[in-house]
Amino acid sequence: MHSLKKYVVIVAGGSGSRMGSEVPKQFIELCKLPVLMHTISVFRKAIQDIDIVLVLPEEQIKTWKSLCLKHNFITHVEICAGGETRFHSVKNGLSLLEGDGLVGIHDGVRPLVSEETIKRCYSEAAIYGNAIPVTEVVESVRYFEADKNRMIDRSKLRLVQTPQVFRLASVKEAFSQEYKESFTDDASVFESHGGIVHLTEGNRDNIKITHPIDLVIGEFLLNSRTSVSI
Amino acid sequence: MHSLKKYVVIVAGGSGSRMGSEVPKQFIELCKLPVLMHTISVFRKAIQDIDIVLVLPEEQIKTWKSLCLKHNFITHVEICAGGETRFHSVKNGLSLLEGDGLVGIHDGVRPLVSEETIKRCYSEAAIYGNAIPVTEVVESVRYFEADKNRMIDRSKLRLVQTPQVFRLASVKEAFSQEYKESFTDDASVFESHGGIVHLTEGNRDNIKITHPIDLVIGEFLLNSRTSVSI
Repeated sequence: MHSLKKYVVIVAGGSGSRMGSEVPKQFIELCKLPVLMHTISVFRKAIQDIDIVLVLPEEQIKTWKSLCLKHNFITHVEICAGGETRFHSVKNGLSLLEGDGLVGIHDGVRPLVSEETIKRCYSEAAIYGNAIPVTEVVESVRYFEADKNRMIDRSKLRLVQTPQVFRLASVKEAFSQEYKESFTDDASVFESHGGIVHLTEGNRDNIKITHPIDLVIGEFLLNSRTSVSI
Repeated sequence: MHSLKKYVVIVAGGSGSRMGSEVPKQFIELCKLPVLMHTISVFRKAIQDIDIVLVLPEEQIKTWKSLCLKHNFITHVEICAGGETRFHSVKNGLSLLEGDGLVGIHDGVRPLVSEETIKRCYSEAAIYGNAIPVTEVVESVRYFEADKNRMIDRSKLRLVQTPQVFRLASVKEAFSQEYKESFTDDASVFESHGGIVHLTEGNRDNIKITHPIDLVIGEFLLNSRTSVSI
């Protein structure tokens, strides 16, 4: 099973609005390198022969290419234009891939995913058909029902991260269904199409770089790791 | 209703273990001042005539007093020794208070609660009998049932913070019940005793200082605020 071809579709559709920045968040520099280059590098480091598809808004592709020149970032990546929503962007990315294999779908603005998380997701997906990295909830949680709210047992909840890894053929089929607003991630698309989701352990610091504070956290975490791959 | 006497029980029972530190986390310095002093100061600033009860592990009381001298921290605070669990510590703190009024119960290691959150919790508790600050969940969430897991609508979930504010008499009564391991916060104690919990808006950056990364986040957030009260 481990000889299955491995792919990752990295989706970066964001603007910089929540960052209070003109620069799209995936291009903002973290330790002097655009967020997205960290993300791509960690996949290349975890799985050397992985095929990478990068989905970017059409109007950002030119900027991305000039950033690659500027930073001498030469990892081979196939580029694809995004769609109207994340769902459509992922679908576009998947449409470039043929045959069988394992494909991860990953948020471009999660540069802090660990190599261990990546490897674990692919190896468990080879066994179970899919693997979704999750972490525990540390806060108390309340749940609304009608106009009431009640405590909910947080040990039964998990926060979902990426990469969400699937067998290529099955996830392409799942993405052939009609778009629903309730799709908050790829596992929900897969599940809505009848798939049974397998959870695995993520890494707590695999945060999304969305707000200015996340850049501070990200730099601290990158600096505390023994080496930063580029 | 707004003339009700206001109290806060600030509970600081932690060790420094998750910080990798010998210093209990409530005493670790954030912008050169122990975490707990920031916490106390923001309550004093939000509600000037509030009565503050500080619950500390017995063996930390002497250290706290010497820290107050060192930092010339002179706000009046009543000190009380903690108990075996957070539940018992809160109960000890509440036992010092008599009569009627509104009492907030707050984590000592949440120094970043905003003055607005504090004021909102007390004014809504004056109307509804209690007020629990919560924030929305931004991640996708999955829920376990038996050995299966499924997506859960995150818009129905809220993450719970402190201060959790109650009418003094009713929360003292709730804390007279027997301790259960399922009590993860004061709202769960109150609810388990038949109370109906009222939710209000917290502030997203009202984080618990628990891990080393939280100190970095905390310093960034404090520095981005216009002024730091001491």
